[in-house]
Order: sequence, then C-alpha cells, then structure tokens
Amino acid sequence: MALGDKDVRVRLQQSALNLFAERGYERTTAAEIAARAGVTERTFFRHFPDKREVLFDGAAVLLSALTGFIETAPDGLAPLDVLFFAFNAVVPLLEANRHISHPRQEIIAATPALAERELTKHAAMAHALAKLLQLRGVSHLPAELAGHTGMAAFAQATTAWLDDPAIALSERLDLAYVGLKALWSAPTRAADAQTSPEAG
Amino acid sequence: MALGDKDVRVRLQQSALNLFAERGYERTTAAEIAARAGVTERTFFRHFPDKREVLFDGAAVLLSALTGFIETAPDGLAPLDVLFFAFNAVVPLLEANRHISHPRQEIIAATPALAERELTKHAAMAHALAKLLQLRGVSHLPAELAGHTGMAAFAQATTAWLDDPAIALSERLDLAYVGLKALWSAPTRAADAQTSPEAG
Repeated sequence: MALGDKDVRVRLQQSALNLFAERGYERTTAAEIAARAGVTERTFFRHFPDKREVLFDGAAVLLSALTGFIETAPDGLAPLDVLFFAFNAVVPLLEANRHISHPRQEIIAATPALAERELTKHAAMAHALAKLLQLRGVSHLPAELAGHTGMAAFAQATTAWLDDPAIALSERLDLAYVGLKALWSAPTRAADAQTSPEAG
Repeated sequence: MALGDKDVRVRLQQSALNLFAERGYERTTAAEIAARAGVTERTFFRHFPDKREVLFDGAAVLLSALTGFIETAPDGLAPLDVLFFAFNAVVPLLEANRHISHPRQEIIAATPALAERELTKHAAMAHALAKLLQLRGVSHLPAELAGHTGMAAFAQATTAWLDDPAIALSERLDLAYVGLKALWSAPTRAADAQTSPEAG
C-alpha cells in the first residue's frame, strides 16, 4: 500500500492526536506515533522534527490561505476589514479541519508547554498578517496593531467555536468584529472598590 | 550592612541583568547572581524560584498599579479608553524603571525561551485586564477582545520606547491609540500579486 506524502502526514497527525488523548502528550513518543500510523520512526522524522511540531503543522497551510485572500481583498477596505475578509474566506478550510483542530485544542489547553508554543505561533501569525497589510500600503505601526488585534479576535472566535460548535464559526467572527468595534463606544462604569477580580 | 527585602530583590535583579548581559542568560547560574549581589544562594531562592523569574518580577507590580487605575477610571469611558487611561497613568512608574526594563528587553529579545515566556506573561496580563473590565460591567467577549487589543498596543508602545527613547512613552501611547482607531477607517489597496512578504 503506497501512501502519498500528504496521506502519511495526515495519518501521523491523526495517530499523534489519538495517542496524546489516550496517554497524555508527555508519555507519548515519536516512535509510538509512527508505529500507530504504520510507518517507521525514520518516516516520522522525515516529516516532523519532533512530536511537538506534529501539532503545529496546520499554521503554514492556514497562513498560506490567508495570504492569498489578504493580497486580493478589494481595494479601499480598512486594515481590519481586510483581515476579516480573509478570516471569513478561510471558514470552509477551518470547518473541514475541525475533526483535527478540536482534539488538538484540548491537548494544547491541557499542556502548558504547548500552550506557550501556541502563543508564539500566534504572535508569528500576527506579525505575518502585519507584513501582508504593509504590502497593501499600511504603514508599520498600524499594520502591527491590526495584525495583533485581528489575530486576537480570530483566535478568540476559533477557540470559542471549537469549544462549542452550536454557534457557527462565521457567526463567531461576526460577533468578534462587532465586539471590536464597540470597544470604542460602549460605556463602562467605575468598579465597586470592594470587589477584586479573581487571580489568574 | 542590613538590607531590607526589597533592596535585596532589586540588587539580585540588577546583578542578574549585568551577568546575563556579560555572559549570556544560559551561561549564568543563580549562585553567580547571588554572589554578585553579595548574598547567599539560599537568599536568592528565598526571593525567586529560578533565574528566569528574576526577569519577570515586575509584571505583578505593573498589574497592581494598572488594577487601581482601571477600577477608579471615570464612569462612562469605553473599554479601550479605560485601558489607555490606566496605561497613561503608569507612565511615571515605567519611566522610573527604564534602567532595568531596557537591558531586560535586550536579554529577552536575544533568548527565544525567554521571549516565549514573555508572550505567556502578556497573555496572562491581557486576561487580567479583561477581568478588570468585567468588573466595570463589560461582558465577557468584548472584555477579552479589549484586554488583548489593549495589551498588544501597550506592548508595542513600551517596546518601541525601550528601543528608542527619543519619542516619549506618553507619545508612543498616543500614537498607538490613534493607530488603533484608524484600523477601521484608513483605506488599503490590493497588493501587487508579484510581491511576496518576507518570511518570518
């Protein structure tokens, strides 16, 4: 049975997710992931540098899709509108990968070292979005602010949707978009000085 | 010479920064930091769990100051206006600590494991800001979005000011504030399809 490279990659990812869920991330080795996927350990390391990177393979695919939509979004859109144009355009891709993204998110949430790595990947993605906006004529500071603001909203929407699919991802993105706009207008009141927020 | 606890802490931080700058973070031990500060290794570990945490001690002080200003900011301010009210109010504190923050930032920028930890601290700070906004009646989603957006702008402004003090921190914050508002209005244009952004 000859498997293409892409099939092997997907199988390794699925095997890794299953083993991480069964035994925990720390107690799973690359060799075990390879065995579960029916390939050699050498094949595993031909695809991924270590077991951690199996979980972060999707970021490149996502960024590549976003790149195309940001480059070709209509003229005249404001920076955050360009980003939301692209976020909405990748909804079908994210929906098609939900069966992988959902268990992945549970493992990341349960493993602090992975959560820390995820934040680093998000920061890199925010920076990449900023670079793409600069290609549309946005200058450095607003591009960086848009990249980080957009990425925070995108991460919030996708995380909420992975946790609870009762609300569609496109609707989550709309809520985040409206929520961001209201940050400048909805009034707040001084807190009761007796109350303190919970730690954490 | 009897030193108060706070003096010892400051001395350990200053010694750590000096040694990290001289030898690099990886090649400096807690024992060496203690020796440079003129205290025992045991004293070091009474103040900090490990050499990494010496660099992240300021976050609690900063959050405590921000908390007070967010709780007592005038009624009627919008969520991001509350956060910028607090950011502006802590400018004197940040200016007073610049001689520590500046070398600290250079060490963090040069050490990927520390940069990753810094992002985790920023995410925790964004979440704490969100909790404080919820105490002012802001609901969960806009509070989280404001926390992350505000934190991104605050980090951008402080980092730019640490890199180049020719522009005052208060002015950096104003630029970030204006920049955030423009993300909804300044038009962009479709990128030249032949151009690609640099990686990273």
